[in-house]
Amino acid sequence: MPANPETTRRSLCPINAFVEIFGDRWSLLIVRDLMMRGYTTYTQLGSGEERIATNILAEKLDRLVAAGVIERAPDPEDGRRVCYRLTEKGIDLAPVIAAIARWSLGHEPNRTPRRLVERIRKQPEAFVAELRRRWAERSTDPLLPLPKA
Amino acid sequence: MPANPETTRRSLCPINAFVEIFGDRWSLLIVRDLMMRGYTTYTQLGSGEERIATNILAEKLDRLVAAGVIERAPDPEDGRRVCYRLTEKGIDLAPVIAAIARWSLGHEPNRTPRRLVERIRKQPEAFVAELRRRWAERSTDPLLPLPKA
Repeated sequence: MPANPETTRRSLCPINAFVEIFGDRWSLLIVRDLMMRGYTTYTQLGSGEERIATNILAEKLDRLVAAGVIERAPDPEDGRRVCYRLTEKGIDLAPVIAAIARWSLGHEPNRTPRRLVERIRKQPEAFVAELRRRWAERSTDPLLPLPKA
Repeated sequence: MPANPETTRRSLCPINAFVEIFGDRWSLLIVRDLMMRGYTTYTQLGSGEERIATNILAEKLDRLVAAGVIERAPDPEDGRRVCYRLTEKGIDLAPVIAAIARWSLGHEPNRTPRRLVERIRKQPEAFVAELRRRWAERSTDPLLPLPKA
């Protein structure tokens, strides 16, 4: 059982809670891949273009499970394998991911398909609704282009 | 001059750009304090309840300046001192900070004044507009309660 955040956190500020959970260079990328790439397996999550090391991936997955953001379950297609999915708390990050994407698209170099950029910029609420719908339907269609193998 | 992100980033994904800049346990707290507490000085930024070490604060400030998110300028009240301010790129994080706050308020223990919670939850756009107005007016009134000295 994870330690009680009320007693272990550096402060009870909501922004601090977020950085204590996601304040590293990897955790939000795992959320991105579950939310937008349709990834569900450890192998898929380890295949991103940012090249996460397997020991770091394992540690971050454990931390996100402990934080209640993702959950492990047997893979419906192969019960011996484990798959990962955002919890309701995890999919509630959709507006955060959308706000981050809008900020970056306006201020940082990126290589994002123009059609996706337009949707995130001009219809952010519809984009968040689509992320939620995909989650509810357990869609594994990639919304983002997959990195080249 | 900072390295060219186009060649040094792990990928050109917008979420990756964000975690490469803010992916640690401190940078977004500095943004919070500049955006919502009205802090402008190194001493103020070092006084938060999360107790950032001075060497880490100095390093994070350098990184945020290099990323174009904050800027240093002589303190208008004492030209020998330096003060810090969000740039336009920095204040454009207001929707990200608001989205993070909404997520945390719904899912994590927090100690936030009820009136502020209501505003962030029910009128997120007005909250973002207020953050922008405060920045434009260089307001140093605290929007968040200041930690006890």
